[in-house]
Amino acid sequence: MKIGILGLGLIGGTIAKTLNGQHIVSGYDISQDSVDYALGNKIIHNAYTDIRLFLEENDVVYLCLYPENIINFIFENNHIIPKNSVLIEISGVKRTLIEEIRKLGKLDFEIIYTHPIAGREKVGIRHSDTAIFKNANYVITPVLENSKTNIELAKKLAIEMGFKHVSIVTPEEHDQMIAYTSQLTHVLSISLVNALSTHLDTSRFIGDSYRDLTRISMINEHLWPELFLMNRDSLLKEIADFSTQLKKIRTAIIMNNKDDLANMMIMSTRIRKKISDGEAYDD
Amino acid sequence: MKIGILGLGLIGGTIAKTLNGQHIVSGYDISQDSVDYALGNKIIHNAYTDIRLFLEENDVVYLCLYPENIINFIFENNHIIPKNSVLIEISGVKRTLIEEIRKLGKLDFEIIYTHPIAGREKVGIRHSDTAIFKNANYVITPVLENSKTNIELAKKLAIEMGFKHVSIVTPEEHDQMIAYTSQLTHVLSISLVNALSTHLDTSRFIGDSYRDLTRISMINEHLWPELFLMNRDSLLKEIADFSTQLKKIRTAIIMNNKDDLANMMIMSTRIRKKISDGEAYDD
Repeated sequence: MKIGILGLGLIGGTIAKTLNGQHIVSGYDISQDSVDYALGNKIIHNAYTDIRLFLEENDVVYLCLYPENIINFIFENNHIIPKNSVLIEISGVKRTLIEEIRKLGKLDFEIIYTHPIAGREKVGIRHSDTAIFKNANYVITPVLENSKTNIELAKKLAIEMGFKHVSIVTPEEHDQMIAYTSQLTHVLSISLVNALSTHLDTSRFIGDSYRDLTRISMINEHLWPELFLMNRDSLLKEIADFSTQLKKIRTAIIMNNKDDLANMMIMSTRIRKKISDGEAYDD
Repeated sequence: MKIGILGLGLIGGTIAKTLNGQHIVSGYDISQDSVDYALGNKIIHNAYTDIRLFLEENDVVYLCLYPENIINFIFENNHIIPKNSVLIEISGVKRTLIEEIRKLGKLDFEIIYTHPIAGREKVGIRHSDTAIFKNANYVITPVLENSKTNIELAKKLAIEMGFKHVSIVTPEEHDQMIAYTSQLTHVLSISLVNALSTHLDTSRFIGDSYRDLTRISMINEHLWPELFLMNRDSLLKEIADFSTQLKKIRTAIIMNNKDDLANMMIMSTRIRKKISDGEAYDD
């Protein structure tokens, strides 16, 4: 197949790396530097400078842009996107994106909404790496406008990229789960790091736990505010649920209640083990 | 040297593994199973069943017990611990432990208070592993009662165990730092996992971030309530500081304030990078 990558960043570059060879992968990016790097390192087969040709000549185009730019792109290019085109977007929010694009009315082309749950704390094509997708999760959120054939195609390509599990859920379920598993974790990591209030050299006191919990506080400040705000209601609910649990621990500490603390630890151990077991289920 | 390990658990077993061979390492444990495992796997050179002999015949004894049991052990055996013995304790709290033991008055022997900042989410000698200490941090908190010679000895042995950095700080500084880098991180991880409120199969939605942030929610419910409660004031302060930061993010989300969110992300990225650089400083 001819596959186009619109946006040669970390994820766009990684998709290109995993699919190029089995398919003819081309790229389009406003950054000449990214295009040169992609061509120079044979990450893409060829590059386009004419967006119309890029859209026409590819069988599938991956929209590897930040969510607001996906909306902008569709609104601005609606009239030139060829009939029956298949566009696959890969952003971390779904409901708001789908709602915004629906404001255009019925489209001649099809957008498949998907989310590769994989990333790095670095940005740009230079950090793209096929290992990022290896054994990771991929989620597809079909909408009424989608055909079964193209959902299957997006699934097949995700497997070719190296993803281990491809799940099909509703946009609502996606946004709820992602608010918890991804957005809340980033909120906690940022808050933890920003709560640092000591003159001491932290690096001499940290163990794996602090290293693990704070890695994702190195975060892309251009992308993530969009993700948080486009999923506000779900994320605020998750922050509230988390705060309830945090208060429970705080109360047990204030009350010197060892049993309550132990019970919360037994519960977290049990839940977390069940998740690990779920992940290992079909290994 | 002759080194005794009192308590053949995860940490006691790991200390034995790293020091046995260069020294003659013996063990003492109330669990016959742990003793048999340690002997059978040559983790220790020999085992004692007579605590008096164990204390008499070793040059240094590591107290690898939970903090409350360290206090109990010292109170119960105060009269049989030989004069000028060197005991090194390795628990995760310092001030309360030191204060409690000081209630015994002047001691004939010396206790060095140390903290290997290393662990695993599993317990018991079967999970002991020299890799746990490799390149990790070790902290010593000298007290007035300590001699320079024995502080140096504890330091030298920590290096032999594979620790990369040995830091000397006050018990107050230790408890403040550990409340932030270790105890708060565990509180957050437990709260995050216990906030799970979905019928969906979480394991299909999680990425590295959730995996990293929740690993330590699999926690030893016998040890950690003691650690939290013996460091209550510091931990409550850290929970409060964290909550302030969490509220800032929450407010920015409610107010749709993208700039505030971006600024908090820039700040967390900068602080976290500085910590990584600090760690890499003398690599």
